[in-house]
Amino acid sequence: MAPENTIDAPGSYSQAAIERLFTRHSAFTGRVFSTRSYPSEEKLQQAILDGELELGLIAIENSHTGTLHTTLTMLVDGRLSPVRAGLANAPRVHVVGEYIHAEPHRLLAPPGATLEGIEEVRSHPHVLEQCSRWLDDHVPRARRVAELGTGWASKAINELGDPSIAAIAGEKALEHYDNLIELAQGIETYPSATFTRFWLLGLEPAKGERHHEPRTSLAIRTKNRPGALFRVLACFALRDINVCTIECRPHVRGAVEAHSPWDYTMYLDVDGVPDLDPGVCEAIMNLREFADDVILLGSYPRYTLEVMNGTWTST
Amino acid sequence: MAPENTIDAPGSYSQAAIERLFTRHSAFTGRVFSTRSYPSEEKLQQAILDGELELGLIAIENSHTGTLHTTLTMLVDGRLSPVRAGLANAPRVHVVGEYIHAEPHRLLAPPGATLEGIEEVRSHPHVLEQCSRWLDDHVPRARRVAELGTGWASKAINELGDPSIAAIAGEKALEHYDNLIELAQGIETYPSATFTRFWLLGLEPAKGERHHEPRTSLAIRTKNRPGALFRVLACFALRDINVCTIECRPHVRGAVEAHSPWDYTMYLDVDGVPDLDPGVCEAIMNLREFADDVILLGSYPRYTLEVMNGTWTST
Repeated sequence: MAPENTIDAPGSYSQAAIERLFTRHSAFTGRVFSTRSYPSEEKLQQAILDGELELGLIAIENSHTGTLHTTLTMLVDGRLSPVRAGLANAPRVHVVGEYIHAEPHRLLAPPGATLEGIEEVRSHPHVLEQCSRWLDDHVPRARRVAELGTGWASKAINELGDPSIAAIAGEKALEHYDNLIELAQGIETYPSATFTRFWLLGLEPAKGERHHEPRTSLAIRTKNRPGALFRVLACFALRDINVCTIECRPHVRGAVEAHSPWDYTMYLDVDGVPDLDPGVCEAIMNLREFADDVILLGSYPRYTLEVMNGTWTST
Repeated sequence: MAPENTIDAPGSYSQAAIERLFTRHSAFTGRVFSTRSYPSEEKLQQAILDGELELGLIAIENSHTGTLHTTLTMLVDGRLSPVRAGLANAPRVHVVGEYIHAEPHRLLAPPGATLEGIEEVRSHPHVLEQCSRWLDDHVPRARRVAELGTGWASKAINELGDPSIAAIAGEKALEHYDNLIELAQGIETYPSATFTRFWLLGLEPAKGERHHEPRTSLAIRTKNRPGALFRVLACFALRDINVCTIECRPHVRGAVEAHSPWDYTMYLDVDGVPDLDPGVCEAIMNLREFADDVILLGSYPRYTLEVMNGTWTST
């Protein structure tokens, strides 16, 4: 479970996502790039901080299985972020793009495999959960093994070559690994409504451009006082700034030290960017008056998925 | 992965949680009860609807790994809920209690096992994630196998008796399975700040009592219009009702049909109950004016965890 940084595991959903983002979104097209995988979000973040990697893509939420909260926590106050230690000018990563990926999940296995013979299915834990109903119905006795991601799972079963061990992954894995065949497709519980949102990370904050309808993501820490949530939203509503989404979580770290396990971190996405929208700047200054901490995760061009004739189209 | 309803798997965190809730919280003490496990939240919900089970306990969120979103979706619009099909008077389950469980995670294995010899670790996927840093450091080559829960994982490794296969579970599993030993304790990434919130489910809504400081959980569906979130919170703020927590997720079902993948379901916990607080009633009526759907998940006595001298105490 802890391969070296030098090992690559192509064929992941992230790889498919980054290739599509860089060919479909006008803010990113025209770049020449190569991709590689990292065995954890922390190592990917460190590679960006070290200048080894220009941009990194991480999954942040799925419409079925929810937010990848451990990743969000890492971005806000992970052990790799020197900002949390008071070093406000130290380098840190910023969210500089988003992408929403929708693709049917596939069950892949080495040649000779049959559904009846599958004893083990490997994938990212969220992907296993997204397919749990199908797995219950079709391979009820198969062990479900958590891998670092769909690329790592595909690489592992390709190397093992054991027809009783399958992986759940996408088209990219099927393309990349010559020795894998597809046993089933579209095995997610909600076939028309399972999509994953990715964030693109970089060392330099992105410059907002009006025609990209940019959006800003923030983390806000407040005491759990009556009305705290409402006051946060009011800072934006009073300035006609739309808050697109919000999530609250209790603080994960230092609960015992602080004697305050139920203080909150709120995660917000708002329309607009501080660079271009004075209202967003003012709302953030207003927040700092009463929040313990306001952390700008980044501003980035919006990515939207539209449904056209029953299939997803990016716009 | 799909045992029959007749199989029991004691020794889970849920079992520990329900025993503590029923001995520590004044709203529930004094009852005589027995417990049993179900192989899925859906089967547990169905057992309540069928009258086979009086009350059921399900994990709903963890401070480290976040909301168990699939479970929340099941409660709101799962295939088992006849309300969603327009049968408003058909039976459905209600949230009637909450409990917050904090206990160090333990690595358990059959006698003779050593850390060096562990090749496979089984547990609930969220628990595996809560311990991932320790697993990376101490058993980096071990497969991580997703089980239905910590009771199922403990039962499985106890039956297999293979000293290379371990489970992550709690004290209850160690008590129940004579043939398991503890290899490590406190292996979660955030030892002082990992706690799980459970909901108690029943067929009859709970009657609110003022001295229990009751709380109400709701799901609200709205179109993704500018200011939608703020208007929802304003319904409560205008009436001095505290919103304790909020989470937004895109609708999971029917996205293609509706051509609206980014409409939201919001999950809110608010202080008070419609029975006792006219303001809560009025806020809900106000919400119905502009929300597509307002679903009362239930009202229940509050459960709080306090930190006393570095250890958790329930109050």
